[in-house]
Amino acid sequence: MSVTDRSQRESLASLAAHRMAIEAVSPEVDAGRFAAKAVVGWPFEVTADLFGDGHEVFGAAVLYRPAQASDWTEVLMQPLTNDRWRAELTVDEIGPYVYTILAWRDVWGSWRRDTAKKIAAGQDVSVEVEEGRLIVAAAIASDADTKPLQDLRRALKSGGASDVLMREETDALMSRVGPRANKTLYPHDLPLWVDRERAAFSAWYELFPRSTGSEGQHGTFRTVIDRLPYVRDLGFDVLYFPPIHPIGTTNRKGRNNTLRADPEDIGSPYAIGSPDGGNSDVHPDLGTLDDFDALVAAAAEHDLEIALDIALNASPDHPWITEHPDWFERRPDGTIKYAENPPKKYEDIVNFRYYLDDGKPNAPFWEAIRDMFVFWAGRGVLCFRVDNPHTKPFPFWEWIIAEVRSLFPGAIFLSEAFTRPKVMKRLAKVGFNQSYSYYTWRNTKAELTEYLTELTQEECRHYMRPNFFVNTPDINPVFLQTSGRPGFRTRAILAASLSGSWGLYSGFELCEAASLPGREEYLDSEKYQLRHRDFDAPGNIKDDIRLINRHRREQPALRDFTNLAFEVAHDERVLAYSRHDPATGNFILFHVLIDPHVGAEFSFEVPLWKFGLVDEASVEVQDLIHGNYFTWHGKHHHLALDPINRPYAIWRLIAPGSART
Amino acid sequence: MSVTDRSQRESLASLAAHRMAIEAVSPEVDAGRFAAKAVVGWPFEVTADLFGDGHEVFGAAVLYRPAQASDWTEVLMQPLTNDRWRAELTVDEIGPYVYTILAWRDVWGSWRRDTAKKIAAGQDVSVEVEEGRLIVAAAIASDADTKPLQDLRRALKSGGASDVLMREETDALMSRVGPRANKTLYPHDLPLWVDRERAAFSAWYELFPRSTGSEGQHGTFRTVIDRLPYVRDLGFDVLYFPPIHPIGTTNRKGRNNTLRADPEDIGSPYAIGSPDGGNSDVHPDLGTLDDFDALVAAAAEHDLEIALDIALNASPDHPWITEHPDWFERRPDGTIKYAENPPKKYEDIVNFRYYLDDGKPNAPFWEAIRDMFVFWAGRGVLCFRVDNPHTKPFPFWEWIIAEVRSLFPGAIFLSEAFTRPKVMKRLAKVGFNQSYSYYTWRNTKAELTEYLTELTQEECRHYMRPNFFVNTPDINPVFLQTSGRPGFRTRAILAASLSGSWGLYSGFELCEAASLPGREEYLDSEKYQLRHRDFDAPGNIKDDIRLINRHRREQPALRDFTNLAFEVAHDERVLAYSRHDPATGNFILFHVLIDPHVGAEFSFEVPLWKFGLVDEASVEVQDLIHGNYFTWHGKHHHLALDPINRPYAIWRLIAPGSART
Repeated sequence: MSVTDRSQRESLASLAAHRMAIEAVSPEVDAGRFAAKAVVGWPFEVTADLFGDGHEVFGAAVLYRPAQASDWTEVLMQPLTNDRWRAELTVDEIGPYVYTILAWRDVWGSWRRDTAKKIAAGQDVSVEVEEGRLIVAAAIASDADTKPLQDLRRALKSGGASDVLMREETDALMSRVGPRANKTLYPHDLPLWVDRERAAFSAWYELFPRSTGSEGQHGTFRTVIDRLPYVRDLGFDVLYFPPIHPIGTTNRKGRNNTLRADPEDIGSPYAIGSPDGGNSDVHPDLGTLDDFDALVAAAAEHDLEIALDIALNASPDHPWITEHPDWFERRPDGTIKYAENPPKKYEDIVNFRYYLDDGKPNAPFWEAIRDMFVFWAGRGVLCFRVDNPHTKPFPFWEWIIAEVRSLFPGAIFLSEAFTRPKVMKRLAKVGFNQSYSYYTWRNTKAELTEYLTELTQEECRHYMRPNFFVNTPDINPVFLQTSGRPGFRTRAILAASLSGSWGLYSGFELCEAASLPGREEYLDSEKYQLRHRDFDAPGNIKDDIRLINRHRREQPALRDFTNLAFEVAHDERVLAYSRHDPATGNFILFHVLIDPHVGAEFSFEVPLWKFGLVDEASVEVQDLIHGNYFTWHGKHHHLALDPINRPYAIWRLIAPGSART
Repeated sequence: MSVTDRSQRESLASLAAHRMAIEAVSPEVDAGRFAAKAVVGWPFEVTADLFGDGHEVFGAAVLYRPAQASDWTEVLMQPLTNDRWRAELTVDEIGPYVYTILAWRDVWGSWRRDTAKKIAAGQDVSVEVEEGRLIVAAAIASDADTKPLQDLRRALKSGGASDVLMREETDALMSRVGPRANKTLYPHDLPLWVDRERAAFSAWYELFPRSTGSEGQHGTFRTVIDRLPYVRDLGFDVLYFPPIHPIGTTNRKGRNNTLRADPEDIGSPYAIGSPDGGNSDVHPDLGTLDDFDALVAAAAEHDLEIALDIALNASPDHPWITEHPDWFERRPDGTIKYAENPPKKYEDIVNFRYYLDDGKPNAPFWEAIRDMFVFWAGRGVLCFRVDNPHTKPFPFWEWIIAEVRSLFPGAIFLSEAFTRPKVMKRLAKVGFNQSYSYYTWRNTKAELTEYLTELTQEECRHYMRPNFFVNTPDINPVFLQTSGRPGFRTRAILAASLSGSWGLYSGFELCEAASLPGREEYLDSEKYQLRHRDFDAPGNIKDDIRLINRHRREQPALRDFTNLAFEVAHDERVLAYSRHDPATGNFILFHVLIDPHVGAEFSFEVPLWKFGLVDEASVEVQDLIHGNYFTWHGKHHHLALDPINRPYAIWRLIAPGSART
């Protein structure tokens, strides 16, 4: 009898082509729906469960290629434990890649393992030797790497075949070119987006250009140029501005977010649009587009990139309201819909319309926003901090980012979403290179440990890169409102050393903390008025910022934040952690006092075992604050930190046999 | 400017159709590559992360259908916390199904929530009421459920529209039929295999038919019929035999697995094949196929199913060796390949050839094995215990099981793989309904807790159903070799109450434990000789087996093993756990003494909170060993267990307000 018809017979052949099991590939974001992220020149690790039936020896490789290329590059995978395999690859071009996995039964490897056991047991292996010859012959028949194989064939002919076959060099050759039986290709080409380094490793300084003028004067792009040496001296590499566009006057907010502005109030830069223009124009008081171009060029000379804040808000005076009335949500009475969070209304801002009533995208509007990004990228701006992306559709961002990248692969999008965790992760999946985080609200040792474990160990590490801002114009953290200077110092050190990217908003370095009563809003917020600051005021923390930004550049271990490991310090007020770069051996250990009010004397463990050392061993150490070298003997040590004189310590551990620098 | 060409414009429309995010769907086995498993009439839970942009109200449903049908059945999902949603469905036919998820923006829900807030704040909502009317009109235009909607329209016309719109009954109606905006369909139809209950809930008794004769006599299918009342009296529902086929004589193994048999030795039933036939024949000493049919029929009368052991081993005397010489692996000298684990050789068994040298399946052989399963299924055998499936290719089993199921959807395949964890799970994924487990080697409280947590909580719960055999002809557990009778009692209770399916091999109920020295093999193993037993011998544990099998049938909570929860007992030698069936309220609490040598007096917690009760509350309890009822007052209680008189306790907790039965 037979129940197999022709179509089933074909499916049998197709099914049978997957003799090897390839499972739990990592990274694989949402079954390959979204791209994992990598960085040019940084190692990219791929792991998977790989196994077949029976007790054979198996082999596997990661295959990868640029998305548009047709040829694969192959990197052999190595077995770890419990059927898990691993390979590490390095990509050297920005842009989209794909990768997949090939697994096979290693005919040579199985033969050699089994024959070695039989020889060791004194068994007759004459038939096995003949099997070995046939495997070599099969390799010769199929492989281009003929010279070493021909040498092997000649050696086999000249006698002592068993010895020749069992030689280490024969094994090395055959492991490379031996026949791969039952080759099984993972059925999905997984997407990978490869970024330039700044997408994953950057330090951002935020200022309001209009506050850079002399006291009482509206600043301009030209006065911002005067600030560039200051920002670069602190060690930052991205200079980021809130929106620089014309500001509406209808329902303009006054100082401290009052509902009605006085005539002299300058308005919130997030109420974008006036008769002077919209999202592709600059506020006339800041200067002209030519001035802006000059600023971008000057910044580049200072090794600084300019980042713009893209806020898809329109003031009621936005030119598009009359030019494109159908780009806005309207109510049954024909009036335009203001932003609202019922029962609150935000009457200085109106909503764009992303979808038509039939569920289709409002394509002309999407294209206009795409063109706006392209406009600024064309002027040399490749960093975009996107305001509240979670209140706009995910497919909109996925499309926008792909479109902009098709012209500017080096564009970097930072997601300013403070919302539910899965929404924040979705935005990273659809393409944002960096993401604002919950860092400002994670203050205790337990909170930081739990949150950083999630960010660096869980699946999101493959696609979400936090940017730890210590403050923003919207967030004057409660912790800093009462911490005094010690808290500003440690929060900067933590942000800059726990995350690949970090940032601060101007005034933080001066320990500004005055708030609206009971709120996380700054008093006299720069969102609604000019602020003039003395950046040399005593009590500033510029030295700390310079120090940590310098070490970020000089210590390779401080680049890829997923290398974070928590270390042992026996005090709830001290966070101990290390960063380790296997490629260079660079190893940095941090002790940071979490409590800004009371010091701690505590014991800690030197992670000697990570250098393959016993607990009684010694390791050379450099104090990265003072620069001096000394030696730690043994695993257990004591340290005192105090809020005023030493709120943190940074150590470089030098592996035995390594050079000091 | 525009960088969008035609193909990108199309992809924009396609992308935009996925405004809702649908992530982390569970179950979803290997991204839908394999089917999740369900049982006819049992609830099947589907969960997913669901969210959209902004602050709207969302809705979602699970859609499911038989794989061959075209119409979906819809079950609305309910939000849990943190953007997780859930639905529970029940399927009522054996066979393949598919399911997926539909999500949308709930236009009515958002409108009602926001309008209610505005009304509460005393705002003018006249425009909002007009919006509400338009939503109702849109529902009327699109929905077939016209009568209640027409009533609603009439009510709106007769005035007081705001009140009418905000009524609870309006909300209930509109939640059901209101417009669904931005409908997003999960892009995968996920496979689901629906089994009959015995696939997930069964009790197996294993015996060697040839041992059922009178002392010294070879048993037959007819003498097995005489044992049926015994097996059924113990409460089992599957009666399982090692292979019943003709046994080879070449290189036959002797008693206790000696290399050479004496002439009178009967041989291992796993050396299948002789001049009397192969895998579709019966050993002549057991009787004829007619006798076998009579046994199957008699078993059915006793509510017992017969399970056969399918071992794809051939003795060197198997008829296929001459009929199909190319179905066997051969060596370069033309000799047939014996099974081996170098340097060990198993010369009584030869290997089948599953793949040809070109990597294609040996299709005629695959079909012959498929036909062999179909042959036995046609004789009324629907339970197959498959011997060592992990040494045969995964695609082979995937194809075999699908083929057999296409004719016999009620077929049940039990995987006898004792190997690495991921291999065991793969076999369950490719279709095995039940799996042997590590249970025999999990003895301590920590081991059992860890293993059962994996089985009942991790992803494998969706596709792998353990069958906890307490012993097998191959496994005489070390624990039982020294535990004495108390260990046999508790291991039976644990197996039968921790797993949906459990089983024992004849002799266990008599506490047989004699082993080969230092081995897990039975002394005088029935695999190589006849065994005659006195099943009424004193010291048997038949009462324990009857008791737990009866409660398995009577207590609904003991069916679906994934409902297992560990409870608190303050003693490392006591395992406390509960099983709870929400549909019936049935709640069973177990206390089992893990240590077979020393008793324990310990305190335990009554999980009152699971009944919504405070710690000081009372709950009625039935002792399921003695049948009596009493009341536990408060959360903390003491209990004494001892190996001889009371090695375990089983309690039924009766929720306040429930009936006793």
